[in-house]
Amino acid sequence: MKTLVAGANGQIGKQLVQLLHNSDKHTVKAMVRKEEQAEAFKQEGIETVLADLEGSVEDIQHAASDCDAVVFTAGSGGSTGSDKTLLVDLDGAIKTIEAAQQADVKRFVMVSAFQANNRENWYEPLKAYYVAKHYADRALIDSELNYTIVRPGGLLNEAGTGHIQVAENMTEGGSIPREDVAKTVLACLDEENTYKKSFDLLSGDQTIEEALKGL
Amino acid sequence: MKTLVAGANGQIGKQLVQLLHNSDKHTVKAMVRKEEQAEAFKQEGIETVLADLEGSVEDIQHAASDCDAVVFTAGSGGSTGSDKTLLVDLDGAIKTIEAAQQADVKRFVMVSAFQANNRENWYEPLKAYYVAKHYADRALIDSELNYTIVRPGGLLNEAGTGHIQVAENMTEGGSIPREDVAKTVLACLDEENTYKKSFDLLSGDQTIEEALKGL
Repeated sequence: MKTLVAGANGQIGKQLVQLLHNSDKHTVKAMVRKEEQAEAFKQEGIETVLADLEGSVEDIQHAASDCDAVVFTAGSGGSTGSDKTLLVDLDGAIKTIEAAQQADVKRFVMVSAFQANNRENWYEPLKAYYVAKHYADRALIDSELNYTIVRPGGLLNEAGTGHIQVAENMTEGGSIPREDVAKTVLACLDEENTYKKSFDLLSGDQTIEEALKGL
Repeated sequence: MKTLVAGANGQIGKQLVQLLHNSDKHTVKAMVRKEEQAEAFKQEGIETVLADLEGSVEDIQHAASDCDAVVFTAGSGGSTGSDKTLLVDLDGAIKTIEAAQQADVKRFVMVSAFQANNRENWYEPLKAYYVAKHYADRALIDSELNYTIVRPGGLLNEAGTGHIQVAENMTEGGSIPREDVAKTVLACLDEENTYKKSFDLLSGDQTIEEALKGL
């Protein structure tokens, strides 16, 4: 299974690309915006493709053309302001969904945000960000793609534990290392029990495999 | 026909409320966020309701409950930044669409922006704004409401001429007085030829009635 990672240069993206690259079952193509971002991947023998989430659907479609799955884990980041939230987290995500459909890719995993599905639970200072994630997720659900929407809690940079908890709707927030998010996304790709499902994700006490099977 | 105007305190909204108030065929309810905004309408005998587009769907649904139509002409304005674009122009609009459906209102007229349907034609400095309008319009098209989406060009404050041009897709931009946008929205409300249609709107040489019948 060949997977295009949109947002390969991001903090989760980089880890996911490595995991896919090191897996026997997977092949990876890292999608990045700039040549200098591609360089580091190329040096490790990882296939890269240049495409801009602020560019055309056609460019992204071309990037996805020989892939079986797409993971969207791009984010404009906290420092760029809400203009980029609209252009990347919302429009960039939905263009990637459209591109996947046009490239006849069937599988799509979205890295979203904890409780992005529930307006009532949006953390006030990040509300605009949640709006963008919410409507990108909705567009994916309404598409014809075989989707999984992973909604992690507060992201940590510490090493992963390999232990998580998942649920279609969590009431209590929490956190999770980015490494465990990347590992969960990897496991989702071919775990049929995650097809057409959306779930919140936090650190927990089940293995990733157990947790996903219990969804 | 009783129409709820969401964004009644805006520049187009104020003119539309007056037109509806002065029409024999219409009744109007002006939806505003603050008590002081309601005061000016009340002094003229215009019904008002307080509801916040950043609040709950239920509040907007309550505002729309006894209405036959909803016009969305709210905008966060140029000075508030893209956070408000996400919260008002996107999420506020889609909450109003959901509220109209839940209140069993059938008719919905959206004031959008010229060529918001075509990503390629978005004016670069306002691209984030166009993203918000684009997905709000899409949500309306995908809803079960009997919609009309009016996409005016550059908005002018000068007096209207009563003469417009409309087309489902225009290639050349232009401008139009806000007064003529308000009059066009009024005319759309019960012009069956605009049902389930979206169109660009500029100043032109047809009367509003002729132009809408020719769509």
